Amino acid sequence: MTKILNGKIIAEQIIASIKKKVQNHCPKRVPKLVVIIVGDNLASQVYVRSKVKACHEVGIAVVELAFKADISESFIINEINNLNSDDSVDGILVQLPLPEPLNTLNIINTIAVNKDVDGLTNVNAGRLLQGDQQAMLPCTVKGILALLTYYRIPIKGQNITIINDSNIVGKPLALLLNNLGATVSITHKLTKNLSIYTKKADIICTATGIFNIIKPEQVKKGVIIIDIAIKKQGENKKIVGDIDFEKMKNKAQAITPVPGGVGPMTIAMLLVNLLNLYEKQIN
Amino acid sequence: MTKILNGKIIAEQIIASIKKKVQNHCPKRVPKLVVIIVGDNLASQVYVRSKVKACHEVGIAVVELAFKADISESFIINEINNLNSDDSVDGILVQLPLPEPLNTLNIINTIAVNKDVDGLTNVNAGRLLQGDQQAMLPCTVKGILALLTYYRIPIKGQNITIINDSNIVGKPLALLLNNLGATVSITHKLTKNLSIYTKKADIICTATGIFNIIKPEQVKKGVIIIDIAIKKQGENKKIVGDIDFEKMKNKAQAITPVPGGVGPMTIAMLLVNLLNLYEKQIN
Repeated sequence: MTKILNGKIIAEQIIASIKKKVQNHCPKRVPKLVVIIVGDNLASQVYVRSKVKACHEVGIAVVELAFKADISESFIINEINNLNSDDSVDGILVQLPLPEPLNTLNIINTIAVNKDVDGLTNVNAGRLLQGDQQAMLPCTVKGILALLTYYRIPIKGQNITIINDSNIVGKPLALLLNNLGATVSITHKLTKNLSIYTKKADIICTATGIFNIIKPEQVKKGVIIIDIAIKKQGENKKIVGDIDFEKMKNKAQAITPVPGGVGPMTIAMLLVNLLNLYEKQIN
Repeated sequence: MTKILNGKIIAEQIIASIKKKVQNHCPKRVPKLVVIIVGDNLASQVYVRSKVKACHEVGIAVVELAFKADISESFIINEINNLNSDDSVDGILVQLPLPEPLNTLNIINTIAVNKDVDGLTNVNAGRLLQGDQQAMLPCTVKGILALLTYYRIPIKGQNITIINDSNIVGKPLALLLNNLGATVSITHKLTKNLSIYTKKADIICTATGIFNIIKPEQVKKGVIIIDIAIKKQGENKKIVGDIDFEKMKNKAQAITPVPGGVGPMTIAMLLVNLLNLYEKQIN
C-alpha cells in the first residue's frame, strides 16, 4: 500500500499551534505580514488569497498591496524600503512571478534580510549554500522538509532527484537536501534522459506542471514521491500535480497527494517563518 | 588520444593580459589585494605564497596579514571591517580553512561584497543561486568555467557529476553549471554508489583528495574529467590529483592534468576577480 503523505493534517496542526502562540505570546503587538502583488496573474491572486486567509485564521495582521502591471520598478523598490524601516512590519512577501519588464532580482533583493519571510533574497539563498543555520528557508522547501521529517523519511545518504531548477524550489531544495547528506541531482527541461535520474532515486521531488511527467516504469519500486506541482486539468478542471496517483500507487512507497500535500505545508511554513521574524524583531 | 586540458598555458595568457592592463590602465593607483592567513597550516601557506607571487608578477599590490591560530574572532572581524572601509583595498581574501574555534561564516560574511574577491560571502553565493550576473564567482569555479569555455566543451544539456560538496567548490560549481543548462549531480562521502553517478556523466568534476577515486570501469568512454584536487603522494612526494591519468587515458576524451590544470586557472581567476573589483571601485 502506498502511504499518503498528508500535508493537510500536519499543516492544520502547525497552524493551530501558531494560532495559540499568536493569542498567548504576542503581547506587545500583533505580528504583521505585507504581501505585494503586481498585475493580474490569476494563479498569483489565488495564492495570495490563501496566504491572506491563513494569516487571518491565526491572528496575524496582513496588508495586501496590489499594484497594476505597469507600475515602475523604482516605485516598488521605494515601497519595500519604506516597509523595511517600518517597525510594525515583520515580513514582506513579493508574490512571483512579476510581470515584465520588472527586474525580479532587484525587487526581491531589496527586502531587508530580517523581513525576508520567503527566504528568497540573495543573503538567505547564500546562507543556505553555506549551511548557515540562520538561513530563512523558502516556504515550499521548508514545507517539504517538515513533511519528510514528520513521516521520518530518511534524507542522509539517500539518492534524491529533483525535477525543477527554479530559484524558489529546485535550487534551494537541492542545497538543503545536500546539506542534510543526500546525493542530489537537479534535472529540468534540458535533461537528456530523465529516466536515468528517476530510476535510481530513493526520493523524487517534482514540480514541472506537466501531468504524468514520470510513469511507473521510470521509477524504482518503493520510491517516495514529493509532488510539488498544482494545476487544473481537463474539462472538469480537476486539480492535479505532476503524478498520476492511480498509476503510481502500486510502485511508490509513499506519495504526497495533490491537493493536500505540499501546498498546505507551504502556507503553514509562511506562518512559521513570519512568527520567527516577529520573535526576533520584538526581542 | 586523450586531450590534455592545459590550464597552465591558458592561465599564462590570462596573466599576461592582466599584467598589460595593470601597467597601462591603472593610472590612479595600483590595484591592491589583502590576504588574511591564520595559523600555520602548511598547505594554506603554500597556496598563499603562490597567490602573492602571482600578484607580484602582474603588478598588483598585495598585503599579507598573518595571524596566530589563537587570534580572536572579533579581532579578525574588526580587521576586516577596517579593510572594508579602506579605499586603497580592492579585494580581501581569507585563506581557508580557519583553525578552530573561529567561526568561518562569521568571518567570511564580514567581507564587504564589493571586496569579496573569492566570491564566498553569502551575498555572492546567493547571487549565484539566483543566476544574477553580478555574482562574483569563486576562483576555482570560475577557472573551471574558463577552461571548459576555452576548449569549447559544451555544458548545456550535459550530464555532469561533481564529486565534492564544499561551499567553495562543489555547491557553487553545481549552481553555475545548472544555470548554464547542465543536469548536475552533487556526490560526496555519503553517496551510496558513486558509480551510478560517474557512469552516466558526460563531464566529471572531482575534488576529493583521494587518489584514484574513480577507475576507468566507472566512467563511460569519452568522458571529460576535470580534476580539481592536488596533493603530494608516496615516498617521492609526487604531485597528484584524484585521477590516475595513465589508467584513465584510454577512456577519457579529455582530462585536466595535475599539476597544470585547474590549479593555475584558479590563481589566474583571482587576478581577474581582483581587477574587476578594482575597476568597479575606481569608476
